[in-house]
Amino acid sequence: MDIKNFTLPQLEELSQKIRNRILEVVSTNGGHLSSTLGATEIIVAMHKVFNAAQDPFIFDVSHQSYAHKLLSDRWEEFSTLRQFNGLSGYTKPSESPMDYFVAGHSSTSISLGVGAAKAIALNNEQSSRIPVVVIGDGAMSAGMAYEALNELGDRKYPMVIILNDNEMSISKPIGAISRMLSSAMASPFYQRFKRKTEQFVDNFGEGAHYLAKRFEESFKLITPGIMFEEMGIEYIGPIDGHDLKSLIDTFEIAKGMGKPVLVHVQTIKGKGYEIAEGKHEKWHGVSPFDLKSGTANAKSSAKSATQIYADALMSQALKNDKIVGVTAAMPSGTGMSELMEKFPERFWDVAIAEQHAVTSMGALAKEGFKPFCTIYSTFLQRGFDQVIHDVCLMDLPVVFALDRAGIVGEDGETHQGAFDISFLRLIPNMTLCAPRDEKSFHQIVAYAAGYDHPCSIRYPRGAFLEADLPESVPFETGKSHLLISNNSDILFIGYGNGVGRAAQTIEMMESKPSLLDLRFVKPLDEEMLELMAHRHKRWYVFSDSARLGGVASALLEWLSEAKISDVQVISFEYDDKFIKHGNTKLVEEFLGLLPEQLAQKVSEEV
Amino acid sequence: MDIKNFTLPQLEELSQKIRNRILEVVSTNGGHLSSTLGATEIIVAMHKVFNAAQDPFIFDVSHQSYAHKLLSDRWEEFSTLRQFNGLSGYTKPSESPMDYFVAGHSSTSISLGVGAAKAIALNNEQSSRIPVVVIGDGAMSAGMAYEALNELGDRKYPMVIILNDNEMSISKPIGAISRMLSSAMASPFYQRFKRKTEQFVDNFGEGAHYLAKRFEESFKLITPGIMFEEMGIEYIGPIDGHDLKSLIDTFEIAKGMGKPVLVHVQTIKGKGYEIAEGKHEKWHGVSPFDLKSGTANAKSSAKSATQIYADALMSQALKNDKIVGVTAAMPSGTGMSELMEKFPERFWDVAIAEQHAVTSMGALAKEGFKPFCTIYSTFLQRGFDQVIHDVCLMDLPVVFALDRAGIVGEDGETHQGAFDISFLRLIPNMTLCAPRDEKSFHQIVAYAAGYDHPCSIRYPRGAFLEADLPESVPFETGKSHLLISNNSDILFIGYGNGVGRAAQTIEMMESKPSLLDLRFVKPLDEEMLELMAHRHKRWYVFSDSARLGGVASALLEWLSEAKISDVQVISFEYDDKFIKHGNTKLVEEFLGLLPEQLAQKVSEEV
Repeated sequence: MDIKNFTLPQLEELSQKIRNRILEVVSTNGGHLSSTLGATEIIVAMHKVFNAAQDPFIFDVSHQSYAHKLLSDRWEEFSTLRQFNGLSGYTKPSESPMDYFVAGHSSTSISLGVGAAKAIALNNEQSSRIPVVVIGDGAMSAGMAYEALNELGDRKYPMVIILNDNEMSISKPIGAISRMLSSAMASPFYQRFKRKTEQFVDNFGEGAHYLAKRFEESFKLITPGIMFEEMGIEYIGPIDGHDLKSLIDTFEIAKGMGKPVLVHVQTIKGKGYEIAEGKHEKWHGVSPFDLKSGTANAKSSAKSATQIYADALMSQALKNDKIVGVTAAMPSGTGMSELMEKFPERFWDVAIAEQHAVTSMGALAKEGFKPFCTIYSTFLQRGFDQVIHDVCLMDLPVVFALDRAGIVGEDGETHQGAFDISFLRLIPNMTLCAPRDEKSFHQIVAYAAGYDHPCSIRYPRGAFLEADLPESVPFETGKSHLLISNNSDILFIGYGNGVGRAAQTIEMMESKPSLLDLRFVKPLDEEMLELMAHRHKRWYVFSDSARLGGVASALLEWLSEAKISDVQVISFEYDDKFIKHGNTKLVEEFLGLLPEQLAQKVSEEV
Repeated sequence: MDIKNFTLPQLEELSQKIRNRILEVVSTNGGHLSSTLGATEIIVAMHKVFNAAQDPFIFDVSHQSYAHKLLSDRWEEFSTLRQFNGLSGYTKPSESPMDYFVAGHSSTSISLGVGAAKAIALNNEQSSRIPVVVIGDGAMSAGMAYEALNELGDRKYPMVIILNDNEMSISKPIGAISRMLSSAMASPFYQRFKRKTEQFVDNFGEGAHYLAKRFEESFKLITPGIMFEEMGIEYIGPIDGHDLKSLIDTFEIAKGMGKPVLVHVQTIKGKGYEIAEGKHEKWHGVSPFDLKSGTANAKSSAKSATQIYADALMSQALKNDKIVGVTAAMPSGTGMSELMEKFPERFWDVAIAEQHAVTSMGALAKEGFKPFCTIYSTFLQRGFDQVIHDVCLMDLPVVFALDRAGIVGEDGETHQGAFDISFLRLIPNMTLCAPRDEKSFHQIVAYAAGYDHPCSIRYPRGAFLEADLPESVPFETGKSHLLISNNSDILFIGYGNGVGRAAQTIEMMESKPSLLDLRFVKPLDEEMLELMAHRHKRWYVFSDSARLGGVASALLEWLSEAKISDVQVISFEYDDKFIKHGNTKLVEEFLGLLPEQLAQKVSEEV
C-alpha cells in the first residue's frame, strides 16, 4: 500500500513500526540512534508530502536517514546496516535511486540543494520537482551551510529546508505567542495576506514598501527566524517534529510557496526509546546494546588511542599552562571533554567549524601558546587551506592530533582516515610523526608540547595493534627507532599503527626481517635510512594510509634524491580507491592487509 | 611626531599624503589600488585610537593594508612594494612587528581575532589589548567568517570588527533614519541607556527581560545590523568611512564597550583617485599605469592562459547546453565574466565560497550537467574536502579548471599555485591533466567536456612559455605525447607549462634529449613510460609544482610498482619551501628554474 494514501492513524502506526525496526537493528549492529529516532516523523511526513523518487531528498550528514532507508525498499535489508557488504549507515546512491547523494561529512546539504535547484530550473522542472533538505541544528554551525544560504537567499530557488532542531542550540522560541505566530505564518491565510501586501507594495513604490516591510518585520519579531529572513529565506516555525499532522500541513504549504523556505522543526533526540530520550552524546552513535536495559554489550578492554591521547595531553596540560586545545564538535570522540572539564578556559569546542578551529589556533600559537588542534583525520580535510595559510606559512607551533587515522570500520567511505599523510606531507614546515603504542603516545605528546614548529600526529580509531616489541624511547625530530635488526635482505618499515601490523606479520613468518619504526615521515631519518639501504635491499612499508603520496612515496622520493637505486620498495598502504564500510578486520581482510595475508605476500615475492 | 597627538586637520593632511604615496608607488609597481585607497581613513583612525604595537591589527586578505604599512615605519621602503626582495603586497610579520599575521586568502580575520582574544583573556591583558579586525563586505561571504562570528557571539570576547563596506553588497541602510539611529547607538547616551536596561532586566527577571529585548529590537529594527545582533555581536553603523571624526569617535566607543562590536563603515573604492572611484573590478588589482590618464602601461601581447580557457569553454558551451560553470568571486580573474554574460543561467559567481562552489557543482553533475568549476589553484585548497567527499566519492564528472597554477609572481607566498597536483593526485577517481599551449588547451577543454569522471586541468598565470614544438593532438585519457625522440640517454618529461620550460631548456643544450609531454599525471601513460624506460635512463621532470607528492613522485611510484630500477628521476619541481613574491622571472631565477640554469644543471650532472 502506498504511503501517499495512508490516513493519519496509519502514518502514526507506521512511525511506530519504523522506530521498532530501528531499535531492533541498531541494538544488534550498533549505529546512530538518537538523531534517527528523533527524525522519524519528519521523514514519514516527507514521504507523504513529497515524491521521493523525483524530489531530491537531501539528508545532511545522513546518519538520521534510517527511516528513509526503511521507506525506500530496504526494510528487510536493513538488518545488514553498517555491516560489511551490507547497507551503509549513510545515504548512498549506489544502494538506492532514492538516495540522492553521499553524505557523511556535515553541512553539505544546502549546497547540494542549490545545485539541484539550478538543475531543476535549467530543465524547467519547477512544477514537478523540488529539493527537500533535512539539516540538524548542529550542522548549521559550519561555514559552508552559510555560504549556500547566502546564494540561495539571493537567487530564491524554490526549496524546502527542514531544520531539525533537536538540541535547542538555535535561539529558543518564546512559548505560546511564538507557536501561535508560527502556525499563523504557516497558514494559507498568512501567505495570502503576504502576497497581497507585496502586490500593494509593487503598486505604490518605495514609501509603501518601507512601511509594509516594517509591519511584516514587527510581525515576525519574536520568532527565531529573523536571521534567515534577513538572508532572504522564508521562515516557518517552530513546529512540533513529532506531530505528524503539523508536519504534513506545514510541508504542504512550504512546497507550494515557490521560494526557499526554512521549516524549523523541534524534535527530541532518541524519541520513542525512553532510555535515550533527550540524551545527546551518549546515544548519538552506539555499539550494540541490550534493548531492555540500555547497557552496551561487552566491549574490548584494550585502551583506545583516543583515551591514551586524552591522558597524555592531560598530563602535559597539568604541567604547562601554555597548552590549549580545540575540538570541532567532537568532544567525547576526541577525548577533549575531559580536558574541557578540567580546563574550561584553555580547551574549547568551536562546533562543526574546522576552518575556524585551525585558524584561531594559529593566532594562539602566534601569541605564545601551544595549541593542540584535535580533529579526526577525515575532517581535517575541511581545514586544509587553513593548515597551509594560517599555520605553516608562518611556521607556527600548532599540533594537529589526528584521531581515527586509518580504516574506521562501520562509518566507511566518507570517514576513512586515509589521506592525511599525503595532504600534510606536501606542506612546507610541517612535521609528521606517529606513535605505535601507549608509551610512545605519551612520549610523542611530550615531544610535540615542546616542539616549535607545526606538527601532526596520527593515531587509529580504537586500540593500537598489539605487538611484543622493545620499549619505546623518547622522540627526537626526524629520528626513527630500529626495533629488530636481523641479518636479512628484508626490512619492514612501520609507521604509526603500521608498526604493530608489521610486527604481527613478522610473527607469522619463518625467516625474520628487520623492523624499523619510522616515527617521522617528515623529516625522514636520512642517516638511518642510508644505513638500512646498505643492509637491506627489500623494504616493505606498513602504514594505515593511502599509497599515493604516502609513506612509501616519501621513501621513494628520498631514495631517488640520494641516488640509491638498488633498494626495492613495496608498499602495503591503501590502493587508490575509496574504502567501503564494515567491521575493520573484515575490511582489512578484503584489502589483503591482515598480518597473515601480508606474510603470505612477502613469502611469495621472495 | 606621534600620530596620537595629531589634530583632526593634521590627520586629514596625513591621509592625503598616504593616498599620494600609494598612487605614486602602485602606478609604478602595480598592486591593489581601489580597496586600499578606500580604507585610508579607517587605517589612520585605527592608528589614532588603538595601539598598533600592542593591539593585534588584523587585516582580512590584507591587500587593503598599504596605509598601515606606511604608518608603521615603511614609508621609504614602500617603493619596493611587491618587488622581488621588497615589501609584500600583504601583511607579513617578518616585515614588521606591527603586521600581526600573514593574510592573502580571504575571511580568516575574525578567526584570528578570536584566537588573539582567547590569548588576551588567558594573559589577563583585557585592559590593555584588544583585537582590531578590518574585513571587507566581500570577505563576509565565506563560511569561515561565519564560523568565527558564531563562536565570538557566544563567548563575547572584546573585539572591534570594522566592516569595510565598499560595494554595498551588505543590505543597504534606509537613508536618514538609519544615520540618525546609528549615531544614537554609537553615542555614550545609547550605551548608557542600554546598560541601564540590562541592569533593570537583571533585577526583574524573565518577564522584564522579554519586554526590554522587545524594545531594544524595535529600536534597532531598521538598521542593517539585525543579523549580527542575532548572532550576539553588537552592531554600530553605518558610518561614513571617509569622515575621520566619525571614525575616531566611533572606534573610541567601540573600544570601550568590553564586548564584540561590529562597526559598519561605508567607503568608496578608489576614493581620492577620481579615475578609479567606485569602479570595482577594473581598479582592484592593477598593473603599472599612467597616473594622469589611468591608462595601463604597455603589456605583453601574448594571450593569457585565462583568456584561452575562456575562449575554449565558450566554444564548448555554445555547442553543449549541459555545460555549466562557477567562479568563486573571481569572474574576470578566471575569464568567467564573458561566460556569465553570454549564459547568465548557466554560469554563476557564488562569491568567496569555494566549499559551496564545489559541492553545488557536484549536485549539478549528478543531475546530468557538466560543470566547470573554475578556481585559482591556491583557492581550491579551500574546497579540498568537498572535492573528495562531494565529487570524487561519487565519481561525478566535475571539471576543475585551476587557474594560476605555478608561480604567480607579485602576489607571492599566499597565492602560489604549487600544491594542486600533490593534493588532487591522492584522491581516488580523480584525473589530472594539463595543456601546454593554446591549441592543446582548446583540445583539453573539448576532451574534459566529454569526460565522464572528475578531472582537473591546471594552467599558469599569464601566457604559456613559448616553444617551437610539434602541434598538439587531441587528448585521450592517460595518453602522453612524445614530442621529440632522440637517441639520447636523457628524457625530458614536461607537464603543462613545464613542457615549454623543457623545450626552452633543450634550446640551450648542445646534445639534444627526447621530450615527452606527459599530459596526464593521473592516470599515467604506462605503455609509453615503459618504452621510455627502455630507451632513456635519465628522466628530468619539468613541472611548475611542488616536488613532494608531485609529478616526479608519481613517476617514482609507478617505476617502483613496475619494478624498474635502472631509471634515474631528477625533479625540477619546487623545493619544499614557501616561495616568495616578485616578478616571476626573478623568482624563477632565484629558484634556479630558468631554462639556462636548468640546461646548466643537466650538463653538470651528465
